[in-house]
Amino acid sequence: MIKDGRISRDILNRAGQVKVILMDVDGVLTSGMIVYDSNGVEIKHFNAHDGLAFKLARAAGLRTGFISARESGTIHRRAKELGVDFLHLGSYKKFDAYQRLKESLKLQDEHFCFIGDDLPDIPVLRRVGFAVAVRNATDLVKEKVHYITQREGGNGAVREVVELILDAQGLLEKAVEKILNE
Amino acid sequence: MIKDGRISRDILNRAGQVKVILMDVDGVLTSGMIVYDSNGVEIKHFNAHDGLAFKLARAAGLRTGFISARESGTIHRRAKELGVDFLHLGSYKKFDAYQRLKESLKLQDEHFCFIGDDLPDIPVLRRVGFAVAVRNATDLVKEKVHYITQREGGNGAVREVVELILDAQGLLEKAVEKILNE
Amino acid sequence: MIKDGRISRDILNRAGQVKVILMDVDGVLTSGMIVYDSNGVEIKHFNAHDGLAFKLARAAGLRTGFISARESGTIHRRAKELGVDFLHLGSYKKFDAYQRLKESLKLQDEHFCFIGDDLPDIPVLRRVGFAVAVRNATDLVKEKVHYITQREGGNGAVREVVELILDAQGLLEKAVEKILNE
Amino acid sequence: MIKDGRISRDILNRAGQVKVILMDVDGVLTSGMIVYDSNGVEIKHFNAHDGLAFKLARAAGLRTGFISARESGTIHRRAKELGVDFLHLGSYKKFDAYQRLKESLKLQDEHFCFIGDDLPDIPVLRRVGFAVAVRNATDLVKEKVHYITQREGGNGAVREVVELILDAQGLLEKAVEKILNE
Repeated sequence: MIKDGRISRDILNRAGQVKVILMDVDGVLTSGMIVYDSNGVEIKHFNAHDGLAFKLARAAGLRTGFISARESGTIHRRAKELGVDFLHLGSYKKFDAYQRLKESLKLQDEHFCFIGDDLPDIPVLRRVGFAVAVRNATDLVKEKVHYITQREGGNGAVREVVELILDAQGLLEKAVEKILNE
Repeated sequence: MIKDGRISRDILNRAGQVKVILMDVDGVLTSGMIVYDSNGVEIKHFNAHDGLAFKLARAAGLRTGFISARESGTIHRRAKELGVDFLHLGSYKKFDAYQRLKESLKLQDEHFCFIGDDLPDIPVLRRVGFAVAVRNATDLVKEKVHYITQREGGNGAVREVVELILDAQGLLEKAVEKILNE
Repeated sequence: MIKDGRISRDILNRAGQVKVILMDVDGVLTSGMIVYDSNGVEIKHFNAHDGLAFKLARAAGLRTGFISARESGTIHRRAKELGVDFLHLGSYKKFDAYQRLKESLKLQDEHFCFIGDDLPDIPVLRRVGFAVAVRNATDLVKEKVHYITQREGGNGAVREVVELILDAQGLLEKAVEKILNE
Repeated sequence: MIKDGRISRDILNRAGQVKVILMDVDGVLTSGMIVYDSNGVEIKHFNAHDGLAFKLARAAGLRTGFISARESGTIHRRAKELGVDFLHLGSYKKFDAYQRLKESLKLQDEHFCFIGDDLPDIPVLRRVGFAVAVRNATDLVKEKVHYITQREGGNGAVREVVELILDAQGLLEKAVEKILNE
């Protein structure tokens, strides 16, 4: 199914080894809009196609996680709805969260994908086996990754990465069938 | 009024037999954004032009329905406001809902149009006489339909399909006149 | 200041006679999104540049009005904030509202501009001296107007029309100066 | 790092002297949408990348401020979250606010950047050493500035200006490193 000339052998090799897909939230699962109302209520805009990405990943036996500097009730709710496995919210020290997770799972860097969009994501992106920037990422981040998505954050970027990884592992069609037969 | 070269005779034949227009909600009547606030309130973004599509369909004697895996108060409210005839919410088993509806109405597959955007819509899209994907649908869905809209979900895609069906049936101008003379 | 080749002499003549600028709200002062939350609260997205359009119109001695089939607290609030002169909300009978207003003001059709985007606007658009469709209007409306805006509804379309009318009447620079010196 | 041919020596000279970055809020830190709900609650859409711009500016020793005609609880909250140094809200007299600030800081016009999008910003833009319009600014504003951003307001325009200024002062890489090592 991988027909896109942009997907090099190196990317396929990297995607093929991923067991855990980690990501920032703002700018990746959302467009990066930070929305409040005058009562202090915060609003987040997620995407239905990205939602199904988490079902596909689970159907293929992959695990997922959020590592975000912002903490918010909406992120907790969305994580629960999506069945996200690992949640590290509320700290700019994303690299420490990543290291602890890697050790506790007894996995290596090549088993991780991280999807980011801005400076605080760089320390983790420098380490993981498959580093991805969303199309709307800042240039400094785009220079440091293996793959840049065609879709924007909050508009299917995560779905694109999950399908790419499952496809590289030969698991996409089976995962789709599993969802069609639910 | 059909001047668009993209509209083949096959599409016109299919559209010409439709009596019931069914659709998914998220990604079809909306852009696919899933929006919550930090109090757990959910927000949905519909479109005024799509709203008038339901008036046009009714003026022409067609019936309409929603089949959505998500259930939400906002969908119920919008359905009521639009005068939607059939509501099947809250289950991923869209095909079962479709089959039951078809039997209860004593209609055949060729009498149904379904508008979808993602994997759970595929089982119904494979069956109906006129299968439509919105422009923002996932590629796996686009491969399986008779028609792909030019407008995006939540930005007039449903209006486009309703006008196409009414036009194929020679009912569009009369329906428009009916609305202008209300 | 009118440098745009699209602005014909006929449009300038029509714009030059306008004394009252009327408009639909959804799709004209907004992008046409109909937004609710799960508590039944309705949300409207207006535009800051359009807001200043009403100040410019007032500074030049023109009056403004809304004629909308939808009625909503948010429209009332925005109308008050903008200093809108005439409010006709909650009825699809836009033509009747227009006729009554025209008679009460003892003005003629050529003194009115109407900005619309969909079928219910057509009866008024057929009558007024300067009929305008926003760029995102439905095709049936675009065929019936003298001018189609370059900007979309909710993203500066009304500002564009107000500046065009003031410019045609030689009043734009003075109105701008008035605002700069407030 | 400045590789963009659009950045002339004059712009670099102007950016190189800036000590305080002031800006309008609506249309600059947001897309210009004015959003209310039917309970009178106001909603503002900011941007995560712009948020980091304020961290970068602070890391480089620059100060920041908002000068906005609108006053709103959401602006106060965002200003606090971003660590904005100067807040002048609720008055159309932006020039007076600018003059008072300049005097109290004992700085000259060349030490100020102002980022604006519409008519009320013009009096300040005419004065400051580095006048910037966002891409979505009204034409009358764009004619009066030294630099027009490539990004839109609410979608990274402020981040672009901050990075440009820091880069012109040779401070960008150090500020980035500071954030990466936090």
